[in-house]
Amino acid sequence: MKSYRKELWFNIPARRGFVNITSQVEEALRESNIKEGLALISAMHITASVFINDDESGLHNDYDKWLEKLAPHEPVSQYSHNDTGEDNADAHMKRQIMGREVTVAITDGKLDFGPWEQIFYGEFDGRRRKRVLVKIIGE
Amino acid sequence: MKSYRKELWFNIPARRGFVNITSQVEEALRESNIKEGLALISAMHITASVFINDDESGLHNDYDKWLEKLAPHEPVSQYSHNDTGEDNADAHMKRQIMGREVTVAITDGKLDFGPWEQIFYGEFDGRRRKRVLVKIIGE
Amino acid sequence: MKSYRKELWFNIPARRGFVNITSQVEEALRESNIKEGLALISAMHITASVFINDDESGLHNDYDKWLEKLAPHEPVSQYSHNDTGEDNADAHMKRQIMGREVTVAITDGKLDFGPWEQIFYGEFDGRRRKRVLVKIIGE
Repeated sequence: MKSYRKELWFNIPARRGFVNITSQVEEALRESNIKEGLALISAMHITASVFINDDESGLHNDYDKWLEKLAPHEPVSQYSHNDTGEDNADAHMKRQIMGREVTVAITDGKLDFGPWEQIFYGEFDGRRRKRVLVKIIGE
Repeated sequence: MKSYRKELWFNIPARRGFVNITSQVEEALRESNIKEGLALISAMHITASVFINDDESGLHNDYDKWLEKLAPHEPVSQYSHNDTGEDNADAHMKRQIMGREVTVAITDGKLDFGPWEQIFYGEFDGRRRKRVLVKIIGE
Repeated sequence: MKSYRKELWFNIPARRGFVNITSQVEEALRESNIKEGLALISAMHITASVFINDDESGLHNDYDKWLEKLAPHEPVSQYSHNDTGEDNADAHMKRQIMGREVTVAITDGKLDFGPWEQIFYGEFDGRRRKRVLVKIIGE
């Protein structure tokens, strides 16, 4: 069994944003030289997500509005967590909806994807450097 | 390390529906001849889910009503994504709540499950052929 | 490829609660003697979650209030599932928001975590013995 590990770094200039990281994961997969196995792609920070969905900007606007409705940022005082001096309690909730991680099948050296699957980094408390972990195991 | 790959196809006759796919995943596991490892079961389409929960029709009705409350289909004009000519933006949201994928432990050649765990395909934009990927790695 | 399996048991005295299980997962990892691979940590019951987030009690209070808002326990009669004699339909929904499982990379014999990542058992229908499965594969 072979394994490969790589960190991807991001610094989203706004509080929230979505970045298509599919090509960076594909690059890590090529570097791994693994042809059959599983790839785990996970947010290393607890106010961010990794998820798979569509690369369509209207949908990303919809996600942003929808998450803000389900877990509003304001008023920050509505969350006990923000009594610690933080203002990001909503980001911890948005990340649970969108998920921490995805596991992707590796077949014939490629991400084994359906027609529209793309991997995204979802940032809910940005304006600082944060990481995604890519871990691939297989042969 | 061995690996096995199989696609399961579905054509749900309504917009939304839940299908118990546990026996189909068990069949793939038998075909794989893998006794110890991990199985990834993932929706290959971004308006569908794979999740693990209870095979109880009342609960499935509850899920359907609840998801419709959290991410309503109508009015379709409330979503920017639907300006592209689609009417399925809500399905992209419902799928994030229910999840893209599950990873299941394989022990002694069986799905290593608690007493009520069953695997479901969740369709949120049906009436066409769509796929689930089963990828099993192990020994 | 090596594999290791362990069950963790919990009996949460209230209906809902969060327990940090990171050190128990680390103990299972030491017992496994696996240095490179993947660990799956999953709830074996369908009214409970395993998730990764912050060990901060204010945030856990926020999660509890937020989940109760998205999927209220009362009135129990609002859910068809509860017509079966259960009163836990809301717990099946809360568990979908928080997730069934996490997959964690194992690197150099350690959980490969960012600075604040901690693993939690989330109980939504407690006051009885329930289990979490830890399955580790690798070398």
